[in-house]
Amino acid sequence: MTLGIIGLGLIGGSMAIDLRKKNFADHFIGYDNSELNGMTAQRIGLVDEILPLDELIAKSDLIILSVPVSAAIRMLSDILDKINDNQYVVDVCSTKEKLNDSVHYHPRRKNYVASHPMAGTEFNGPWAAIPNLFAGRAGIICNAEDSDAKAVELVRNMYDSLNMRIIYMRAAHHDVHVAYVSHISHVISFALALTVLDKEKNEKNIFDLASGGFASTARLSKSNADMWVPIFMQNKENVLSVLDAYMDKLSQFKTAMEQNDEQALRNLIEDANRIKRILR
Amino acid sequence: MTLGIIGLGLIGGSMAIDLRKKNFADHFIGYDNSELNGMTAQRIGLVDEILPLDELIAKSDLIILSVPVSAAIRMLSDILDKINDNQYVVDVCSTKEKLNDSVHYHPRRKNYVASHPMAGTEFNGPWAAIPNLFAGRAGIICNAEDSDAKAVELVRNMYDSLNMRIIYMRAAHHDVHVAYVSHISHVISFALALTVLDKEKNEKNIFDLASGGFASTARLSKSNADMWVPIFMQNKENVLSVLDAYMDKLSQFKTAMEQNDEQALRNLIEDANRIKRILR
Repeated sequence: MTLGIIGLGLIGGSMAIDLRKKNFADHFIGYDNSELNGMTAQRIGLVDEILPLDELIAKSDLIILSVPVSAAIRMLSDILDKINDNQYVVDVCSTKEKLNDSVHYHPRRKNYVASHPMAGTEFNGPWAAIPNLFAGRAGIICNAEDSDAKAVELVRNMYDSLNMRIIYMRAAHHDVHVAYVSHISHVISFALALTVLDKEKNEKNIFDLASGGFASTARLSKSNADMWVPIFMQNKENVLSVLDAYMDKLSQFKTAMEQNDEQALRNLIEDANRIKRILR
Repeated sequence: MTLGIIGLGLIGGSMAIDLRKKNFADHFIGYDNSELNGMTAQRIGLVDEILPLDELIAKSDLIILSVPVSAAIRMLSDILDKINDNQYVVDVCSTKEKLNDSVHYHPRRKNYVASHPMAGTEFNGPWAAIPNLFAGRAGIICNAEDSDAKAVELVRNMYDSLNMRIIYMRAAHHDVHVAYVSHISHVISFALALTVLDKEKNEKNIFDLASGGFASTARLSKSNADMWVPIFMQNKENVLSVLDAYMDKLSQFKTAMEQNDEQALRNLIEDANRIKRILR
């Protein structure tokens, strides 16, 4: 099988590493709108060759569309126009509803699988690709009934090769969930970095004291704008609603402190501690 | 030298492990107001013996006070009442100004060193103690001029034994800094956990999709209320002021999304990305 990967960044590149190891495909073609990314991906062995987009589309049995979700919306319909009945496309974007809706009536909709492998790091580009990024994580397939059974089976096998747990879900439902367990984490981390960087303008040595706690909460603030602006825009309603709920929790902390209400503060913290059931 | 450790939790216990390895003291005495913690600390070898508080105070050359900062404020003055000229006390609490002020006029103030080793994990109790917790981190000594030079030297040696970078700082200045690089991280992590746990009441499987990003930002929300309620209360003014600045940054994200202002969103994210200069 020939696998075409459009977008040779962290996700596309990391998939290439493990899918090659598992012999999921025997030929890996890549395309990236950045020539440097393409050359790098080939040089470090993520793909066997870099081809122009149309050639990649023509030659691939399965196409992985791993680009920012704004680019995916622009490209997906064109790609579906160009493939034949025996070619399939899967995207790996972090928001699903608008992208899915954009091809809902496309005559080749059945050749497309909407999916989201829930894994990543705060780094980007082909040099950020790493092995085993996906192991044990959730591989989500959305609105599977709109895809050909064979297409779903192919994507299922792909996620099996990456050792992912496969979860089926409605696209709209997916977008609510990721607003809670992923997108809001990025907003709060960006805001934390901005707050402390602002303070640094007056307090030069503020980061001298930064320890593991800060590193942990600020880690995601290194994430790339090209990827995250489109995610926030496409999942705006959900992210804004979670952000409101979140700011309400912050206000509860604020009020408890302002009123010297130690018991309220303790209740908030102990309620939050129930996260131990979820996180190791 | 005999080292007395009051409070055998994560910090006291982890200090014991490394200070023993480095032969900083040859006898380790412990006290904990929880009998179970005391027995555990002795059983796992953090200390050589558990003694009643007054006996520990009488027998120790150096006393490490590693208890929640509210308990430290209650105990420190009493401990200073009981020691002689050749005994020293160091605390390791996360807020410094109020504690320091509480003994400012104590006749044995010079035998006390106000300090804060900037390290920790989200776990607590003697079973959370680990080796090398402090290596490479900042060991802060506050208002050193109020302490005897010999006392400061002793604490300096202690932090050297833990491979810490020693930083001298005013207590008030310390409390502002930690509000930015530590305390606010805990508030935002507690609030995140509460937000998602609330949602779970209606969406049973919301955590199925939680990945590394969520784990990273929510990690600190496992932190212990006994430690954190007193920190937030004692550093209330600073934490509230940082919280306001932080909520203002969140509002900027909110406004950018509401107004579909992709450029503003991009600017915020790219400004936040400057954190790469600080965090690996």
